[in-house]
Amino acid sequence: MPLNNDFADQNCSVARTLEVIGERWSMLVIRDVFLGIRRFDEIQRHLGISRNVLTARLAHLLDLGVLKKVLYSERPERYEYKLTARGRDLWPVLMAMMQFGDEHAPAPDGPPRVFSHKDCGGDIDKLHLRCEVCGQDVGPFDVVGAVGPGHGGPKGEFGPLEPANAGA
Amino acid sequence: MPLNNDFADQNCSVARTLEVIGERWSMLVIRDVFLGIRRFDEIQRHLGISRNVLTARLAHLLDLGVLKKVLYSERPERYEYKLTARGRDLWPVLMAMMQFGDEHAPAPDGPPRVFSHKDCGGDIDKLHLRCEVCGQDVGPFDVVGAVGPGHGGPKGEFGPLEPANAGA
Repeated sequence: MPLNNDFADQNCSVARTLEVIGERWSMLVIRDVFLGIRRFDEIQRHLGISRNVLTARLAHLLDLGVLKKVLYSERPERYEYKLTARGRDLWPVLMAMMQFGDEHAPAPDGPPRVFSHKDCGGDIDKLHLRCEVCGQDVGPFDVVGAVGPGHGGPKGEFGPLEPANAGA
Repeated sequence: MPLNNDFADQNCSVARTLEVIGERWSMLVIRDVFLGIRRFDEIQRHLGISRNVLTARLAHLLDLGVLKKVLYSERPERYEYKLTARGRDLWPVLMAMMQFGDEHAPAPDGPPRVFSHKDCGGDIDKLHLRCEVCGQDVGPFDVVGAVGPGHGGPKGEFGPLEPANAGA
C-alpha cells in the first residue's frame, strides 16, 4: 500500500526505498525510534508534528514492515514502536544521511551526535560503516551514540561551496 | 533557502540532509544525473513528471550547491546539469537506498542495476562501499554500473516479513 504511487512505475531499488522513507517526516520518525524515542506522545513532541500526520506515518511504516507495535502496559493498554529487522536495515541510509549533513551543513561546534564502537571505543567511519580504530565492520548493535559537541548549539546550514568543491 | 522549513528547527544532520533529498522526486533527479541523464528534457521524460515540478527541484538543488549548470551548446544556448563535489557526496546515500531496495523489495529476477569495481571487476559491497574481491574502498569514480538481471522485468514489492525477520 505505497502512498507514493507515482514512484511505483520506476523499476529501481532507489525508487522502492522512497516508498519507505520518501514521505515527509518518515525518516525522522525512523531516526527517533533508533534513538530510543518509541512512544506516540514522545515522538509527536520531539518532532513537533500533528497527531494526524504522525498517525498516518506510523500506519504506513507498520504496513511496510519497518516498525512493529509492542505492548508495554496492559492497564491501560499502551504500545510502543520498535524497529523490525527490515527497519534496522535502514540504519546504513540514516548513517549515510548523517555523514552528508555533518560534512555539508555542519553545526559550528561540531556534529550534534557522535558514535563510537562498542567493543573498542573507536570512532565510527560512517561512510564505510566500520570502526576507524580496529577496522571491524559495524551494524546498529555495535555502536554507542552520544551527544556531540554541536548538540544544542547553533544549527548547521548549507554554506556556499568552496571553489575547489564546485569543480567537475 | 530550504523548502522544508519545518525541518529547520531540528539540530540534526539527518534533518539537514532532508533539506536536500526530502523533497518529492529530488533523490530521483540526483539518481538520474549520476546515471548520466543530465538534460532537462531527458530527465523530465525519464521521470515522467511535470516540467514545473522538475524546474522547481532543479532550482532547489542548484541553490543548495548539489548540482551545477554547464553550457554544452552555444547556439542554441543549452545547459546540462552536473553534480558538484557536494552532490557526489550523496552517492553513499544513494547506494544505501539501493541496497535496502534490492534486499527488501527485490525485483523477481534480481537487482535492476549492478555495480562492479573498475580496477578489478569485483562486485561492490554497497553497505561498506568497498570491493568484495580486492577489499579496496570505492567512491563514485571507482565503480562501473550496468543493467542487472531485474532490469525491465517485473518490479519489486515490499513482501511480507519472514517470521524470523520480524523479531525484536
